[in-house]
Amino acid sequence: VKLSSLGEFGLIDRLRRRTTPSPLAVRGIGDDCAQHRLPPDEELLTTMDLLLEGVHFRRDWTDLEHLGRKSVAVNVSDIAAMGGTPRFLYLGLGLPATATVEEVDAFAAGALAEAERYGVALAGGDTCRSASGWVIAVTVEGSAPAGQAVGRDGARPGDIVCVSGSLGDSALVLQRLQRNESMSSPLAQRHHAPPARVALGRALAQAGLATAMIDLSDGFAADLGHILEQSGCGAEVELDQLPLSAAFRAAGGTVELAVTGGEDYELLFTLPAARQGELSGLAQRLNLPLTPVGRIVAAPGLQLLAADGRRALPQGGFNHFG
Amino acid sequence: VKLSSLGEFGLIDRLRRRTTPSPLAVRGIGDDCAQHRLPPDEELLTTMDLLLEGVHFRRDWTDLEHLGRKSVAVNVSDIAAMGGTPRFLYLGLGLPATATVEEVDAFAAGALAEAERYGVALAGGDTCRSASGWVIAVTVEGSAPAGQAVGRDGARPGDIVCVSGSLGDSALVLQRLQRNESMSSPLAQRHHAPPARVALGRALAQAGLATAMIDLSDGFAADLGHILEQSGCGAEVELDQLPLSAAFRAAGGTVELAVTGGEDYELLFTLPAARQGELSGLAQRLNLPLTPVGRIVAAPGLQLLAADGRRALPQGGFNHFG
Repeated sequence: VKLSSLGEFGLIDRLRRRTTPSPLAVRGIGDDCAQHRLPPDEELLTTMDLLLEGVHFRRDWTDLEHLGRKSVAVNVSDIAAMGGTPRFLYLGLGLPATATVEEVDAFAAGALAEAERYGVALAGGDTCRSASGWVIAVTVEGSAPAGQAVGRDGARPGDIVCVSGSLGDSALVLQRLQRNESMSSPLAQRHHAPPARVALGRALAQAGLATAMIDLSDGFAADLGHILEQSGCGAEVELDQLPLSAAFRAAGGTVELAVTGGEDYELLFTLPAARQGELSGLAQRLNLPLTPVGRIVAAPGLQLLAADGRRALPQGGFNHFG
Repeated sequence: VKLSSLGEFGLIDRLRRRTTPSPLAVRGIGDDCAQHRLPPDEELLTTMDLLLEGVHFRRDWTDLEHLGRKSVAVNVSDIAAMGGTPRFLYLGLGLPATATVEEVDAFAAGALAEAERYGVALAGGDTCRSASGWVIAVTVEGSAPAGQAVGRDGARPGDIVCVSGSLGDSALVLQRLQRNESMSSPLAQRHHAPPARVALGRALAQAGLATAMIDLSDGFAADLGHILEQSGCGAEVELDQLPLSAAFRAAGGTVELAVTGGEDYELLFTLPAARQGELSGLAQRLNLPLTPVGRIVAAPGLQLLAADGRRALPQGGFNHFG
């Protein structure tokens, strides 16, 4: 079915009918703006991402349902990285002339399922045709009680550096896709349907446990670099402490890939050494590994320490235009 | 200067350095999310637009500074149409490999000048390369005191239909561009740098004067149609009352174009007939024509009335995929 048979407003209606409005909505989809209340004494958190066909994704490497899921998850992950609760989703879709209603439905099914998973309501957006490939713009708004949100700038010498889940899985899948090799499904899911660690982010913020936090999108070394730069300090990381999944090791994943590979969407955070004992209880409660991998030091720069002494690794991460 | 010499993070830094943070910002550009307080007892208004090269704009018809201005103004206009105060801007930019730092600077100069004009602070966004032309995603957040925002659903039979400014100027300029004809500068500005009627929208909302409101993006007939549909009523409009500018008439603009042409970004609103007397004082105070052009009726549908009796005009507006 061609999109032209539905029209722009038909498409918007179609998306609206599948949407459960937020309990915080005053006006939802269909007016000039979405209109929401925020919970009392909460601050607004906002993040936006552009995802472009041929740049961020290839249609022959991912199906549209997973693309919908990932488009939402990577933005929800930014809310998680501040310790917030994700609330409202805005979806901008530029669709090529060849796009069908079935394709848009598949994308929407993924996006809306992922939104529901995180308690986020589709509240607005924009649809238009695209002269080239799919163009996806996502904005997610969330909120956090005033004073609770965690930035990148609060790491202090002596703090412990900690990471959730495992590293490098997503980059390994991407590497194999680039070589036209397929991967086992559980590992592939780490690339196509990454997690957003909302419960962890909230717990760390609520407990005042994290001094700085970021989600791993550019890669462990690059994202830790963002924290170090904004906190004005350095870090020493023990490479043999980095959490690597059994599947990653079995498929030949290397420590180098775990350090530089992007799109894990795990949370990287720092916490006072005196409170390190609280990690294991939190990990157990969330059923999610939380692994201390190093410490914050006063001297600037990131030192990656191998078991047999110091060595430097390339610290590159993904950099558009780079 | 090639963008690659600056890199993604260099580009973000460059934009950040030209930005004055909002007084409501807790954290601005450079963290996982922007973090803001809203004024006490205000509700959040959010709008998003996608603007794609070759679909919404042509580089040979508009320069990048005007493109930056318009990208911001059309979103601010959506906040105005709810009666809100625009506050925070998020800019997603997909840039072709050929884009230069000078081009991005020109776009940013326009976008940031327009943001400043409306008191909006750049607070975040995303930059990446694009495999084809320029991709622009804009999100603007605003706010309005609880209960003040004006939707499209409040028009009632007996209400007066009113429009600000003049109609059709933007569409006339577009028509001439499509014929490779140039226009005089003041009229051309109506297309390339349309207004966002923020002061008018705020005044109408604050006074509780507008029962329904929308900004004119799809065209007078189509946008009035949105109000009628969501308010569950109809309207009669006197064609000879439509405000046409002297420049529009002199350049041969027709009533048909004024009724169907898009992108005027004036405000179309309804108000109780008993309060029509308040319009002239408001128009004087804002130095902006406010013209009653018809009335809301119970019978569904839009009747366009010529001086010599009834006639129907095509009610089309711009419809992507249509």
